[in-house]
Amino acid sequence: MGIADKIVSGDVRAVARLIRDIDDMVPEARAILKDLYPFTGRAYVVGITGAPGVGKSTLVDQMVAHLRKAAKTVGILAVDPTSPFSGGAILGDRVRMQRHSMDEGVFIRSMATRGYFGGLTQSTRSVIDVLDAMGKDYILVETVGVGQDEIDIVQSAHTTIIVVIPGMGDDIQTLKAGILEVGDIFVINKADRDGADRTLMDLRGMIEMDEKRYKDGWKPPILTAQAVYDKGIREILDEVEKHRGYLTSSSERLSRHKYEKTRKDLTEMIKDKIVRQVLDDIIHSGEFEEALQLIMKGKVDPYTACDNIVLKELKSGKS
Amino acid sequence: MGIADKIVSGDVRAVARLIRDIDDMVPEARAILKDLYPFTGRAYVVGITGAPGVGKSTLVDQMVAHLRKAAKTVGILAVDPTSPFSGGAILGDRVRMQRHSMDEGVFIRSMATRGYFGGLTQSTRSVIDVLDAMGKDYILVETVGVGQDEIDIVQSAHTTIIVVIPGMGDDIQTLKAGILEVGDIFVINKADRDGADRTLMDLRGMIEMDEKRYKDGWKPPILTAQAVYDKGIREILDEVEKHRGYLTSSSERLSRHKYEKTRKDLTEMIKDKIVRQVLDDIIHSGEFEEALQLIMKGKVDPYTACDNIVLKELKSGKS
Repeated sequence: MGIADKIVSGDVRAVARLIRDIDDMVPEARAILKDLYPFTGRAYVVGITGAPGVGKSTLVDQMVAHLRKAAKTVGILAVDPTSPFSGGAILGDRVRMQRHSMDEGVFIRSMATRGYFGGLTQSTRSVIDVLDAMGKDYILVETVGVGQDEIDIVQSAHTTIIVVIPGMGDDIQTLKAGILEVGDIFVINKADRDGADRTLMDLRGMIEMDEKRYKDGWKPPILTAQAVYDKGIREILDEVEKHRGYLTSSSERLSRHKYEKTRKDLTEMIKDKIVRQVLDDIIHSGEFEEALQLIMKGKVDPYTACDNIVLKELKSGKS
Repeated sequence: MGIADKIVSGDVRAVARLIRDIDDMVPEARAILKDLYPFTGRAYVVGITGAPGVGKSTLVDQMVAHLRKAAKTVGILAVDPTSPFSGGAILGDRVRMQRHSMDEGVFIRSMATRGYFGGLTQSTRSVIDVLDAMGKDYILVETVGVGQDEIDIVQSAHTTIIVVIPGMGDDIQTLKAGILEVGDIFVINKADRDGADRTLMDLRGMIEMDEKRYKDGWKPPILTAQAVYDKGIREILDEVEKHRGYLTSSSERLSRHKYEKTRKDLTEMIKDKIVRQVLDDIIHSGEFEEALQLIMKGKVDPYTACDNIVLKELKSGKS
C-alpha cells in the first residue's frame, strides 16, 4: 500500500510522518500531497482565532468533546508561530487536550515552525489537506489571531470563530477593527468577568456599523461562553452548523468560497516556491556576501544592491 | 532643495509624504530612500513588543515623556498588522500619544498596511531609516509581539524590550518561550495586579535556564512597572542606556549587530522584490486563471499546477 493510500485509510503513523515531513519541507512530501489532493474537500474546516490568553485551547477542547459525543471525527491543528526558535507549540502539544489524546477519533497536531523562507501559511494548508484526506469530519484550526499569516489561515476555513474576552484594554479596539471582516461567529469567552456587557455592546456596534458587509445574508452572531465550565459550547456549535447550512445551501456561494480559497492557496504556493528557489540561489552565491560587504563599507546602499542582484538573477533565467 | 535634503533637515511634511509613499509602495519612494541611506545609522532604535492589552502604548508614551525631559528627540513607529482591511492603526494614531502630538521633537507614525505581497517588515525598516535620517535621537518601534513579522522587526532594533502582564493565562508559557531569545529587557507592566510575583519567578526561571545564551555578557534584566502611574519608567530607560553601553562599548559587537541587521534587511528586500516582480507577472498572466479553472474542475492538483507555472516563468527569464 502506498503512503497516500495509508493516509486515506486513516493510518495515524503515516499521517504523523507526512506532517513531520511537511514541517521539515522534505521534497518527497510534495509528491504525496499531490496524490492526496483528490481525496480532499470533504472535511468541514472551522478556524478559531483570538489573542493569547482568551482561552482558545479550552474552547477547542470542549468543542471536540461535544463533536465526539455526536460521533464526529475531529482533526485539530494548533498554529503557534510565536516561537521562532524553541518551538513553543511543541510544549503546547504536551499539555493541551490530554483527555482526547487516547481517542482514535481525534487527531491533534501543533505547528510552530516557520522556516527561513516563511511558509507557515502554506504548510498549515497542506496539513489541513492531510487531515481532510485521512477522513476527519471536522478540522478545527486554532491560531493566535494577530499576525497576517494567522488571518490568512483562518480565512480559508469554512467558518471562522473570533474569540475575545472582556476587558482586554485599549488594544482590543484595533484588534476588533481588524478581525471583524474575517469573523463568521464571535465568542466572548470568560463571560463572567467584568466588562462582558461592554465588550458585547462594542462588538454589536461594530457589526451593525458594517452592515453593508453582511448584505449577502450572514450577520455574525455574538455568543458568550465560559469554556472552562462547558458553558455556551453547544450554542457555538449550533451556530457553526447554521453557518455551514448558509454556506452549503447555495452552490454559487460554496463554489465562490472554494474559488477564493484555491486562488489564495495557489498564489501562496507559487510565492513560496519562487522565494525558496530564487532566494536560496542568491543567498548562496558569492554576490550576496559581496554586496553585504559593500553595504557595510558604505560603498553602496542596500536598495541599489538589491536591484542589481535581482535583475541579474532574473535575467539569467537559470534559477 | 531635493526631497532627501528636506528630510535630512527635518522637514516634517516631506517625511510624512515619503512615509505615505513607502506605505503605498510608490516606486519613486525607493529613489529617495537610496539618497537617504548615507544619513542613516545615527539613531538608537528600541523595539517594544508584547501581546495586545499589556499596555505598550502607555509605556511608550511615558518613555517619550522622559526622553523629552532629557532633551532627546524621538521618532515613534507603531506597527499594527492586525488590520488587513480597515487600517486599524490609523484609528490608533488618532487616540495615541495625543499629549506629544504638538511637540516638534516627536514624530509619530503608525503602520498597518501589509500589501498583497507582504512587505510589512521591509516597509517598517524603510520608515525606521527615514526617521533616522531626519535626525531623531531615539526611535521607538512598538509591535504586537506575536507574529514572525513583528519578531523580525524588533530583532533589528538595538535594544528590544518585551512587555508582559501578570496572569495572562496558559498562553504566556508559549509566548515566553518564543520571545525569550529576542528580549534584551523584560518589563512586567501592570505590576500591581495579582500574579506579578509568579510572572517574575517564571521569567527569571526561564532566563536562568537559558544561561548559555547570555554568556556573551548581557543577562536580560526583569523590571516591574505601572506605566499609567509613570512607575518604573526611569528604571527601564536606565537599562536601555546600560544595554546601549554594552552594545557600543565593543566595536566587534556593534559591527556584528550591524552585519546581522544588514544581512536580514538585504535578504528581506530581495525576497520582496522577487515576489513582487515575478508573482505579479504570473498572476496577471492568463496561465494563472487557466490553472485555477483546471484545479476547480479537478483536472490538476494545485501542487503540479504551481510547479508548472513557476518552472515556465523562471525559465523564460523575462520577469
